[in-house]
Amino acid sequence: MASHRTVTPAGPPAPTCALQELVDRFGGSCGGDLQRVVCGFAPLETATDLQLAFVTAARYRSVVAASGASAVLVTAKDAELLTSQAERLWVCKDPYLQFARIAQYFESLVATVARPGIDPTAVIGVDARIDGTATLGAHVVIGAQVLIAAGVRIGAGCQIGEGSHLGRDTVIHPRATIYPRCTLGERCIVHSGAVIGADGFGFAKDGAHWVKIPQVGGVLIGDDVEIGANTTIDRGALDDTVIGNGVKLDNQIQIGHNVRVGDDTIMAAFVGIAGSAMIGQRCMIGGAARIMGHVTIADDVVVSTQTFVSRSISKPGQYTGYYPMAEHAAFEKSAAVLRRLDGLRERVRRLETSTRNVATDIDSSPVPTNEPERPA
Amino acid sequence: MASHRTVTPAGPPAPTCALQELVDRFGGSCGGDLQRVVCGFAPLETATDLQLAFVTAARYRSVVAASGASAVLVTAKDAELLTSQAERLWVCKDPYLQFARIAQYFESLVATVARPGIDPTAVIGVDARIDGTATLGAHVVIGAQVLIAAGVRIGAGCQIGEGSHLGRDTVIHPRATIYPRCTLGERCIVHSGAVIGADGFGFAKDGAHWVKIPQVGGVLIGDDVEIGANTTIDRGALDDTVIGNGVKLDNQIQIGHNVRVGDDTIMAAFVGIAGSAMIGQRCMIGGAARIMGHVTIADDVVVSTQTFVSRSISKPGQYTGYYPMAEHAAFEKSAAVLRRLDGLRERVRRLETSTRNVATDIDSSPVPTNEPERPA
Amino acid sequence: MASHRTVTPAGPPAPTCALQELVDRFGGSCGGDLQRVVCGFAPLETATDLQLAFVTAARYRSVVAASGASAVLVTAKDAELLTSQAERLWVCKDPYLQFARIAQYFESLVATVARPGIDPTAVIGVDARIDGTATLGAHVVIGAQVLIAAGVRIGAGCQIGEGSHLGRDTVIHPRATIYPRCTLGERCIVHSGAVIGADGFGFAKDGAHWVKIPQVGGVLIGDDVEIGANTTIDRGALDDTVIGNGVKLDNQIQIGHNVRVGDDTIMAAFVGIAGSAMIGQRCMIGGAARIMGHVTIADDVVVSTQTFVSRSISKPGQYTGYYPMAEHAAFEKSAAVLRRLDGLRERVRRLETSTRNVATDIDSSPVPTNEPERPA
Repeated sequence: MASHRTVTPAGPPAPTCALQELVDRFGGSCGGDLQRVVCGFAPLETATDLQLAFVTAARYRSVVAASGASAVLVTAKDAELLTSQAERLWVCKDPYLQFARIAQYFESLVATVARPGIDPTAVIGVDARIDGTATLGAHVVIGAQVLIAAGVRIGAGCQIGEGSHLGRDTVIHPRATIYPRCTLGERCIVHSGAVIGADGFGFAKDGAHWVKIPQVGGVLIGDDVEIGANTTIDRGALDDTVIGNGVKLDNQIQIGHNVRVGDDTIMAAFVGIAGSAMIGQRCMIGGAARIMGHVTIADDVVVSTQTFVSRSISKPGQYTGYYPMAEHAAFEKSAAVLRRLDGLRERVRRLETSTRNVATDIDSSPVPTNEPERPA
Repeated sequence: MASHRTVTPAGPPAPTCALQELVDRFGGSCGGDLQRVVCGFAPLETATDLQLAFVTAARYRSVVAASGASAVLVTAKDAELLTSQAERLWVCKDPYLQFARIAQYFESLVATVARPGIDPTAVIGVDARIDGTATLGAHVVIGAQVLIAAGVRIGAGCQIGEGSHLGRDTVIHPRATIYPRCTLGERCIVHSGAVIGADGFGFAKDGAHWVKIPQVGGVLIGDDVEIGANTTIDRGALDDTVIGNGVKLDNQIQIGHNVRVGDDTIMAAFVGIAGSAMIGQRCMIGGAARIMGHVTIADDVVVSTQTFVSRSISKPGQYTGYYPMAEHAAFEKSAAVLRRLDGLRERVRRLETSTRNVATDIDSSPVPTNEPERPA
Repeated sequence: MASHRTVTPAGPPAPTCALQELVDRFGGSCGGDLQRVVCGFAPLETATDLQLAFVTAARYRSVVAASGASAVLVTAKDAELLTSQAERLWVCKDPYLQFARIAQYFESLVATVARPGIDPTAVIGVDARIDGTATLGAHVVIGAQVLIAAGVRIGAGCQIGEGSHLGRDTVIHPRATIYPRCTLGERCIVHSGAVIGADGFGFAKDGAHWVKIPQVGGVLIGDDVEIGANTTIDRGALDDTVIGNGVKLDNQIQIGHNVRVGDDTIMAAFVGIAGSAMIGQRCMIGGAARIMGHVTIADDVVVSTQTFVSRSISKPGQYTGYYPMAEHAAFEKSAAVLRRLDGLRERVRRLETSTRNVATDIDSSPVPTNEPERPA
């Protein structure tokens, strides 16, 4: 497998924290001496006695005894099965969530102290209003009449188009682009290469040629939204494209014009939502799944990775469709049959008719019952 | 569904225009008082009496009566069915195309007056020739010997590699990159994050290792081409990659080296064209469709969304192939059969033989006719 | 097909080289006068007597006689079939590899003489160490404590995050972004728009909401790695994401957090590797293939284009799975059957039972043998 060549460059020295302080902050009950200090998390297998670890699945239970971790987040149920390790079990309701929250706390301790201010190489348009606590990196370009709220951090090389608004504490990583007249809420995170508000893809036909439909809507993004690297969200044609609160978008996603995405929906990399689709709240869209234009997806729908959603889904549940992998020769054989699948069905029909005739002739039962054909 | 939180930041005040002027410019016949003024388009459902709307499908007809729109673009046929609304019907041959043209006109009225000129933070290479009517944004970097024609606008943070040419009135949105020795025609639009002219993906094998083939061809792009956000078009290996006139490419498309795309072909997001494929004129390639390397696609071919084109297509028409979505449990069942589809065919063959034998034994007709097996 | 509008802008004048010098450097035996000079390669069909060409497949053999090329790289076997062309055949073991190496040599001759140095518009963080032979383009932003080795070239508009390391002779094309604490080895090539080290996609659920898992691992990239335009490689959650030596990644690829890719593996455009997958050495992953999270792929596995790898692969070989394209009407018919494929199997089962009963009744043989059903 891949060669491990060198060590990742060290970040700033990690601050340590006593277990007692962490238990006080985040709850649960931790065995052993709470005066021992830790500086972050590591996988069970590699954690040292300055690190925490966690158990989120039964298969990790067996690793706990061998782990060097100072303390291990577990559920009460797992704790019952690991009594020999009680001295370093930290029992809590949801170890993974507890891990997320404690890790965020450690991150806040190591975060470079933000020196608010505007890099001298940034270029600011007329009538832009930038809060004094905001940070603008090198070569940032801010359009006219942009509004930037308190605590916003904009990385090097970003462009924010005229009239756009960024809510409090939103972070734009280096080299993201926001077109004019887009709005992002509070505490959003936008990764490098993301493009928000480029023209939707709309053309009218004039003979053989395509005539561009100006895209005059905007993009409206809620609070607590994360947008991955190189993801694109198009502006609306007439109305806005709307992304709800708490939505999480992975890398290289494409959201078409006038799409609406409900609160707390999450999408993995390469997902594509075609124009005017409406996605419900709390949906989970697997990687490279694609949603056809103008369809509506209900709340709480799970779309499996790779699945193409060609029609509306009105009922919560999981929906799937991808071609199963096989060894190449086996694939070739199955694909050859698939290309003539209706022919195969026709042959089965004929067999059914023929068998029924034969059966009738010789008075033999039972006659096979047909699976009714339903139109697709 | 998604929460509507705030209103999109207002753009510049919209200029108004009398209907009389628009009818004079764009043709058709409009009922009612032509002195009333409008300032743009809105969907039928939300349009106000300062806005236009349009009907492009029968299902919108019923909405016209309730619409607040000042005037509604319709076909003559729709007008006959909407006589009660005659006072505000604007009858024209192709409402969607008329909408596109009128919307472009409104856009030209609101467009920020381009102040031609070069931002002082731009960096210009030696012997670059930049027309005096061109506009270069902040932090733009222009290579040596670049040619930039009249009316070109280049957004902040773009890089144009040495020796590249941009034709008249071409617009490059912020933060697009054009490698050296690429040519774009007139009136092109390139969106943020697009990369034109990166190396094609070509390697020769030397034992276990890959040796790079230098990519010394260029990219040649016609007039009136639109290139979406984060789309990539690779330079040719020896010859050029060629994109015809009037081609429209959506976001996150990948065009491999030495591909040729014919005039007026349109491709939706995530389309991938592998190296040396030849795509005809006026083709429509659906989202996430992929074209294998070295194949040839005839003019006027429609490739459905999600379809993988693994061989050349010599005949116009629509071509499709994607796995249909189902509820997850139903998918699991069908996929299990699909994995052994050739086995199922074999069972049908045996049944056919067996039934024929049985039939012969008992002198029963008719014998089922086999669907001939054709090789895939 | 696509219109050929103009000629690609000329690059710098191509230096010429005598065949004798090339044969001395690269080996093989070339017919005719070795004092003739050439300036590079072209396709057989368009090569002039100042250019070389090559034959890599039997179907090109017939073109050699008509080619204007000065000399043509061929295998000894092809040379035997082309004796009439002996005067310009350059016989070598692997013409394609020879072409790659000679083309690299020509490229080195035409390469703009690198004037090492830091553009005055670049912004350099505190304690960054930049070798005196490195070249930094306009508007480059280098974070604190970055290490840049000898011969590194960084194009305009790139950002290198704090604490990252770039090995000797690595080339970063304009407008790529490397987040903090990532390491690239020697002789890497990173194309425009690539994003290395953005946060992996990890969230814990808290009721209906998603809580971000801080991504504190890094990205570790070996030597001789090429990374295509707009490709994204996420940083690890706790551990690093690791890309081995000699790996070649095409455009618009997504590598999730904690993925490991073995040495000399190559991936075509749009490939997606979900989090924590382990890809072996010398694998070839076709365009738009996707690898599920946490799976392991053995060394020397070939994954066909478009294939979704939903489980680990422990054995070298080629694996495939994509829906075959058909004319749209034929697709519709097959897809309708596919949706009820388990129903079709059930019907075949019933037929088998019924036929067997009939056969038994009339004492007719043979009884059809069932293909055993294996669980998927």
